[in-house]
Amino acid sequence: MASQQFEPPSGTRDFLAGALRTREHVFAAIRGVFERYGFEPVQTPAFERLETLTGKYGDEGDKLIFKILRRGEHEATGEADLALRYDMTVPLARVVASYGSQLPTPYKRYAMGPVWRADRPGKGRFREFAQCDVDVVGSASPLADAEVVCALTDALDAVGVRGYRVLVNSRQALSGLLEVYGVPADLGGGVLITLDKLSPEKVAAELVDTRSLAPDIADALVGDLTAADAVERMQTTLKDSEAGRAGLEEIGRLLQLASPKVGEDRIAFTPSLVRGLDYYTGVIFEVVAEGMPGSIASGGRYDRLISALGGPDVPACGGSLGVERIIGLLGDDEGDAHRIDVAVTVIAEDTAPEVMGFAARLRDAGMRAEVYLAASRKLAKQLKWAADRKARFALIYGASDEEAGVITVRDMDSGEQAQVPTDQLAAYLTGRCAPPR
Amino acid sequence: MASQQFEPPSGTRDFLAGALRTREHVFAAIRGVFERYGFEPVQTPAFERLETLTGKYGDEGDKLIFKILRRGEHEATGEADLALRYDMTVPLARVVASYGSQLPTPYKRYAMGPVWRADRPGKGRFREFAQCDVDVVGSASPLADAEVVCALTDALDAVGVRGYRVLVNSRQALSGLLEVYGVPADLGGGVLITLDKLSPEKVAAELVDTRSLAPDIADALVGDLTAADAVERMQTTLKDSEAGRAGLEEIGRLLQLASPKVGEDRIAFTPSLVRGLDYYTGVIFEVVAEGMPGSIASGGRYDRLISALGGPDVPACGGSLGVERIIGLLGDDEGDAHRIDVAVTVIAEDTAPEVMGFAARLRDAGMRAEVYLAASRKLAKQLKWAADRKARFALIYGASDEEAGVITVRDMDSGEQAQVPTDQLAAYLTGRCAPPR
Repeated sequence: MASQQFEPPSGTRDFLAGALRTREHVFAAIRGVFERYGFEPVQTPAFERLETLTGKYGDEGDKLIFKILRRGEHEATGEADLALRYDMTVPLARVVASYGSQLPTPYKRYAMGPVWRADRPGKGRFREFAQCDVDVVGSASPLADAEVVCALTDALDAVGVRGYRVLVNSRQALSGLLEVYGVPADLGGGVLITLDKLSPEKVAAELVDTRSLAPDIADALVGDLTAADAVERMQTTLKDSEAGRAGLEEIGRLLQLASPKVGEDRIAFTPSLVRGLDYYTGVIFEVVAEGMPGSIASGGRYDRLISALGGPDVPACGGSLGVERIIGLLGDDEGDAHRIDVAVTVIAEDTAPEVMGFAARLRDAGMRAEVYLAASRKLAKQLKWAADRKARFALIYGASDEEAGVITVRDMDSGEQAQVPTDQLAAYLTGRCAPPR
Repeated sequence: MASQQFEPPSGTRDFLAGALRTREHVFAAIRGVFERYGFEPVQTPAFERLETLTGKYGDEGDKLIFKILRRGEHEATGEADLALRYDMTVPLARVVASYGSQLPTPYKRYAMGPVWRADRPGKGRFREFAQCDVDVVGSASPLADAEVVCALTDALDAVGVRGYRVLVNSRQALSGLLEVYGVPADLGGGVLITLDKLSPEKVAAELVDTRSLAPDIADALVGDLTAADAVERMQTTLKDSEAGRAGLEEIGRLLQLASPKVGEDRIAFTPSLVRGLDYYTGVIFEVVAEGMPGSIASGGRYDRLISALGGPDVPACGGSLGVERIIGLLGDDEGDAHRIDVAVTVIAEDTAPEVMGFAARLRDAGMRAEVYLAASRKLAKQLKWAADRKARFALIYGASDEEAGVITVRDMDSGEQAQVPTDQLAAYLTGRCAPPR
């Protein structure tokens, strides 16, 4: 049989122990931060009703939804009635709609888990990947935006990401800018999508060709956003627009509230930050880090999204950690933290029950103890196994040990051996091994 | 819109914070035990290639597989190419086949996570539910069977299940018994399926009617298995069969190895334990607990299963915790452990940045601090919110506090208030709140 048959499906991954521990370590660190902010966890099913998902992600998004065939007598229709979760936001809208009065107000929740998209698999692009979202539903306060930014950057600190910066802008500021430049409202969305691709020359060309802006307006707009003094230009230009003034104010408020925690030098108004998704209504942000393409966290305020997704009409803001990208930076955890503490050899059948008893006592004391389970009763072979398992200590219970009421403890690093009274074994090894996990 | 539209799909559940914390507490406790035994975690994708799953669970099982429609231009065919994981065992066989040489020998792994079955939903029966398996692949040793039994019962202890008993039998013993009674080999599987339903009268009738046993043999067989002295009867009867003798020996060995840990009075040879699945080849066991119908853990040795599922031909044994059933016993965790430590009120816009700074310091010290995010600036309303959130303390930063360089800390249980210098806030509250999580 071809070995390909045993690989996981295209775009998915098996996580063996080392890789899985890295992932779980990252998720646990993030969870700890979100909990300290008072965000509550929620977990929704892997699949939703198909009609809950379709039409929520645009035509391109809809094509990427994994659909589940109807079952039983309906299977032959070839129709789907369920679909795998595509993100955490549509399920959030459903949860808010379903449990509204049971939830705290505002509802601050985090969600971590896999989502599925039938994208073409590629380097760093998977069909099953983890998302990690925080959202505040039911608060229009700028404090909510600031809490989201602080929770995400705190989580980046907790998982060891260094040298990041938070780029901040506002949809209102961008709308104000387009208004000042006389861009018709119905062109606004498309213009922002183009601006999101910022490489100045290409963008200006596309604004003229695809978005029908006059060349001088396109050049001036791109010039304003990408100038070295873009922030100062915005502060002047946007004075002429109500939306622009509101945008500047909300940006200023977010910076004021978040920068004591994030650090003054790590968060800044960035006029060229656009973000293509058209559901943002207020501040938007992205976190970028040196040496990493793209963003490692992002979000903003989207006061009309929950209702657009079928939930109630409530203000909301939130953000997402690029957790797969972050995990990709960290590598597998094959380190000391998960060494076996004690390898328990079994050199005679008749002492096996006692030997298992030793293992039990060590485990009860919090140590990681593994009993030799292969058939050989040769000590040399079992010590090789202990070394392969990276055990700190090996236990050997020979006939002379048994008579003397002791057990031999071998330090696998130094090779030194000690005879320890069997009733003192756990006490002897506690402290010599890693703290209990 | 009907509210049903916002419920999760039939047979699935949303887990809000309280219920999710109970689940995660249970999974963490179980994980801790399995790790101490030296089992390694693995995580495979939610879906497998359809051909990996079909034909592995029998005709009835195949009907319960959730199939995923092909995508893009192939969607219109109505065909499926992927399917949601139905259990953890077929993915294990695939992992062993795929990564053989990278895995330790024997490969001791645990897997925890959701599986999906399109069963008719009912009380306690879900279409998305968690499984929790330990398996040892590549060891024929009775120590492996004993380690599996001990790990599962240790996990039951860790999650607080009391009053359980481990019932042990052996497929070899049962085969020997059928041999002694002259049951033709080709009837054996069916006879065992019938015996698994033990209510003595019905079973004897079904053995005659459906399985074509002679009435006197059926009665004697059922009589032997359900007699008060069934164990003694087996020890006599099975002496005449090689398989029977081997079965008695493996049962005896498992009891000898596992009972020091499990407790002599909590594990016993139980001749009437059969287990319907036909892939077991050696010892079998079930854990039952008072007041709970069915089993809360089960497993056994299945030396030919991994190869039958497409993996290499290696001996294996394992078991599974009935984790949904166990969680169902425990109820939601709405307890003190997840109270908010500190509710941070915001009574003036201009001090909001400083107030957020106080929250940040408390979080850095490991406390769970939540900032008021609604629009009101009235203290009474914010203190009501603090009470609703079950906060232990509330922070109030008034104009007079600000001038004096202090902050007011209100004990939400007693109503007492203290003025604390702002630079001593974290020290003041540390120790008064729950230990950091």
